[in-house]
Amino acid sequence: MNSSEFRRRGKEMVDYVANYMEGIESRQVYPDVEPGYLRPLIPATAPQEPDTFEDIINDIEKIIMPGVTHWHSPYFFAYFPTASSYPAMLADMLCGAIGCIGFSWAASPACTELETVMMDWLGKMLQLPEAFLAGNQGKGGGVIQGSASEATLVALLAARTKVTRRLQAASPELTPAAIMEKLVAYASDQVVATLGTTSCCSFDNLLEVGPLCNKEDMWLHIDAAYAGSAFICPEFRPLLHGVEFADSFNFNPHKWLLVNFDCSAMWVKNRTDLTGAFKMDPVYLKHSHQDSGKLLPSPSGLHWQLPLGRRFRSLKMWFVFRMYGVKGLQAYIRKHVQLSHEFESLVSQDPRFEICAQVVLGLVCFRLKGSNKLNEALLQRINSAKKIHLVPCHLRDKFVLRFAICSRTVESSHVQLAWEHIRELAAAVLSAERE
Amino acid sequence: MNSSEFRRRGKEMVDYVANYMEGIESRQVYPDVEPGYLRPLIPATAPQEPDTFEDIINDIEKIIMPGVTHWHSPYFFAYFPTASSYPAMLADMLCGAIGCIGFSWAASPACTELETVMMDWLGKMLQLPEAFLAGNQGKGGGVIQGSASEATLVALLAARTKVTRRLQAASPELTPAAIMEKLVAYASDQVVATLGTTSCCSFDNLLEVGPLCNKEDMWLHIDAAYAGSAFICPEFRPLLHGVEFADSFNFNPHKWLLVNFDCSAMWVKNRTDLTGAFKMDPVYLKHSHQDSGKLLPSPSGLHWQLPLGRRFRSLKMWFVFRMYGVKGLQAYIRKHVQLSHEFESLVSQDPRFEICAQVVLGLVCFRLKGSNKLNEALLQRINSAKKIHLVPCHLRDKFVLRFAICSRTVESSHVQLAWEHIRELAAAVLSAERE
Repeated sequence: MNSSEFRRRGKEMVDYVANYMEGIESRQVYPDVEPGYLRPLIPATAPQEPDTFEDIINDIEKIIMPGVTHWHSPYFFAYFPTASSYPAMLADMLCGAIGCIGFSWAASPACTELETVMMDWLGKMLQLPEAFLAGNQGKGGGVIQGSASEATLVALLAARTKVTRRLQAASPELTPAAIMEKLVAYASDQVVATLGTTSCCSFDNLLEVGPLCNKEDMWLHIDAAYAGSAFICPEFRPLLHGVEFADSFNFNPHKWLLVNFDCSAMWVKNRTDLTGAFKMDPVYLKHSHQDSGKLLPSPSGLHWQLPLGRRFRSLKMWFVFRMYGVKGLQAYIRKHVQLSHEFESLVSQDPRFEICAQVVLGLVCFRLKGSNKLNEALLQRINSAKKIHLVPCHLRDKFVLRFAICSRTVESSHVQLAWEHIRELAAAVLSAERE
Repeated sequence: MNSSEFRRRGKEMVDYVANYMEGIESRQVYPDVEPGYLRPLIPATAPQEPDTFEDIINDIEKIIMPGVTHWHSPYFFAYFPTASSYPAMLADMLCGAIGCIGFSWAASPACTELETVMMDWLGKMLQLPEAFLAGNQGKGGGVIQGSASEATLVALLAARTKVTRRLQAASPELTPAAIMEKLVAYASDQVVATLGTTSCCSFDNLLEVGPLCNKEDMWLHIDAAYAGSAFICPEFRPLLHGVEFADSFNFNPHKWLLVNFDCSAMWVKNRTDLTGAFKMDPVYLKHSHQDSGKLLPSPSGLHWQLPLGRRFRSLKMWFVFRMYGVKGLQAYIRKHVQLSHEFESLVSQDPRFEICAQVVLGLVCFRLKGSNKLNEALLQRINSAKKIHLVPCHLRDKFVLRFAICSRTVESSHVQLAWEHIRELAAAVLSAERE
């Protein structure tokens, strides 16, 4: 495909994407297919000669779409949101074209430098303590990771390296293996200190945990994968109180801040803790500025993460932050929180139901008063009807339904319709139980 | 931004991308900027009110492009190639729109299923042993990872889990900690068995290593990150002989097979080895098909990789394989190999230079006969002139220049120009040395 065909096909794809987004509400949110549906629909081997673009675009509706769970449908209330916005998609197009791999400053200076500044922008939006910002002279700073799991693993490895060095300095006779045996990682039942758990969006008390960790010289990593985006609103910022005790902090703008996957934001107070754990310097990655004694704008991916390669992911943040503005992003978060409270209020007015956890942000945990079996039956009816999509969780042995505000385009009307639908199915389940 | 503005801006971005690609040859391949160049060019904080799209698109040329190393310039001969093609970019646009997170089959069946079939397509292109394919009933199969580092880590963890379980079954009195102390991982000086090393694209002998590993019941992981793409050509397939002894195999289509980053292809003979190491089953990820006793089409990201989330990355493979066809992909590989031999031949005809490693695929390692200092001076002149971009490596204490065929659009004329340029700079370096 040459560039003039790309101009044509690219514009067709832009229209396809816009059509998909405009019409997503009319698609069934959860697909009808059975496992193994796709293999019989396509050839067993790649074609020897090229297929046409028309063949492929036709196959999208025939083969792919029937098997898609539509995460951006306003009737999708499952898991947690995954971010999607037009500005992020535009940035991703540019990111694909530049196609640089940012494993060092020299590999594309703009990639390294924009990321540092965007992480400062975002850190300031969250009112993170100054110690987490890179600025011109700071020791801290932020880096984009692929996922919260990756960020947690990076924090663990950095913590391990740091304590190993400290112990070795104090007792040179200790071998790394002997030290390793003595290391302990404390975790809650959701791993590491968590703000906004997946099950029910509960919050650990950092003001209790934090000072203890600092006193015992323990690395404190805080994961706020979902909830973190809300901290750009002053009214939710108190949930982050105590972050000043942490060594590292992470949340996922790719969940709730309109920056398409992947974009997991991680900050550390001391970036040498990370570079110490990951440093590698093959000669083919050396460049003329690294020994200049200047503090290189972090992060070079090389010393901050597991994979050597990384895309120009900060472009997405730049486009989204600029095209929404902080106020636009705050309004977006507030709208979601308001919709979850609207749903909470509907549930509370129906005496057959109970709310199972405090509604803080965009998640409502609820259930029919009664047995787990009853609630499992309700969820099964909901997900079989496929008008809306929900997933469950367990809270203290109780089977609970999670209603998460997810889609960028969800409105009060969708929440109302979803609730009416749940009520109807609940009535059917309850009447089936009485028979 | 609503969808009608996206239609307009998306098409402008398509044109911007096409213009960038068409004009990339006239941009200086390596930027002029100094570390820290970007921060003073943009505000210290995100704007409160939205910026316009015009502001942003103007800033791309003003702020971003001056700091970009143009990996897709035909004068970029550094590192290894990173893949870029129009079909992959079109697929990425669709991937962004669908925006599903494929951590389980139910999270988007098409995402899981297309990936399995694409990995079979690719495995067949490489003539991988049947044992690595999923097919309808196979025990093996492929999964897309983010990077070769991730694939290697996954293989290590799977190997560790497998041997720990085997030893515990044989000697139930052993604790996991006691077993862990005894585990050994063997690696070459490039880590794990490697086909096509980064420094000089050398190849480990699998026919020696493989049977030994099998006899000792050791997990064998093979990394062919760069070279793997070449194995779709029958004439290069012998380099993969011995893969039948491996437990896992990995290469990066995002390097040399025209599938934009990230797409690292990993196969295992026994997928329960992976799911055993990573299995987690929170109730919010359960779905109605997983306990049906049917073999679910692998891979559900959840049990195959470190991050919980994953994009619909197989769309890129589907678009690229179909729009190039196997023959188109083979022709692409062959052209690059031919260009590296052309460069090799040019170097060989100049008695001042020497070739430092066998040229097998798209990489030529060469140097001026003489001291390392002389070659360091040559490389510095090359990268200061910024007409072309190269990086060095060390081969047995020798400082060596790497000339890697990278760009999708590089032609013989670019290689010839690059060589003329290198010769001129070499003459200057040699004459400076004589003075």
